[in-house]
Amino acid sequence: MTGTPPLPIPDPHARARLLAAVRFDKRGLVPAIAQQHDTGEVLMMAWMNAEALNETLATGRACYYSRSRGGLWRKGESSGQVQSVVDLRLDCDGDTLLLLVDQKGVACHTGRRNCFFLAPRGGELTEIAAPLVSPESLYGT
Amino acid sequence: MTGTPPLPIPDPHARARLLAAVRFDKRGLVPAIAQQHDTGEVLMMAWMNAEALNETLATGRACYYSRSRGGLWRKGESSGQVQSVVDLRLDCDGDTLLLLVDQKGVACHTGRRNCFFLAPRGGELTEIAAPLVSPESLYGT
Repeated sequence: MTGTPPLPIPDPHARARLLAAVRFDKRGLVPAIAQQHDTGEVLMMAWMNAEALNETLATGRACYYSRSRGGLWRKGESSGQVQSVVDLRLDCDGDTLLLLVDQKGVACHTGRRNCFFLAPRGGELTEIAAPLVSPESLYGT
Repeated sequence: MTGTPPLPIPDPHARARLLAAVRFDKRGLVPAIAQQHDTGEVLMMAWMNAEALNETLATGRACYYSRSRGGLWRKGESSGQVQSVVDLRLDCDGDTLLLLVDQKGVACHTGRRNCFFLAPRGGELTEIAAPLVSPESLYGT
């Protein structure tokens, strides 16, 4: 196995065994945290259903489930800001995923590198990071 | 404000304003990711209700809501493995928290430093970390 990257996983049976270990919630979803693999920066959290996770495992590209749109959300499909999945972790309870990704550009739809830019400062919620790119440049006008 | 740590937040009105910015789900819960503040290690993900978050903000110690027990879960109360909350982030949608913590000992109830110890290796889910302490030593026998 040395030298073989963890993802993608071409064998559908292997993917099915991995999927069987995940405890999806009543909605059929599991939270997935995306962390930049080399810096440790937590970029975002989103949700996956079995289909999204299966596609992520098969392709090595992060695919989530959009609760607002009710369908697969291939990260970066509109914006170009794709996430290559370098490795993946399941937690002790089997109900949370951690994706170690290589994020192209920015993860947040606001144009910030990560989604976690609000923090208490002096007791008030404050923006602690500015957009690196405009949302318009990501999604068109 | 320089030099004032983000937490704890003693003013109940300031805490109430922060709580009002959080979009709790239909169950009244919000996912909270705990990350070791200095190494970037993602330790665990758990859930908070408004009461748990309010206590976390007030004390600077991580307090979650246990879905299995249906009550507050003061992290480390039984095990001694407390989490001091150094900083806190809310994401762009207001529906996920990131806690930057200083974890005493281990975060995982299995005795591992973090909960994310299962990973695909050669297509099979594999334990990639061993317990540092026995669960019995954490919770008694």
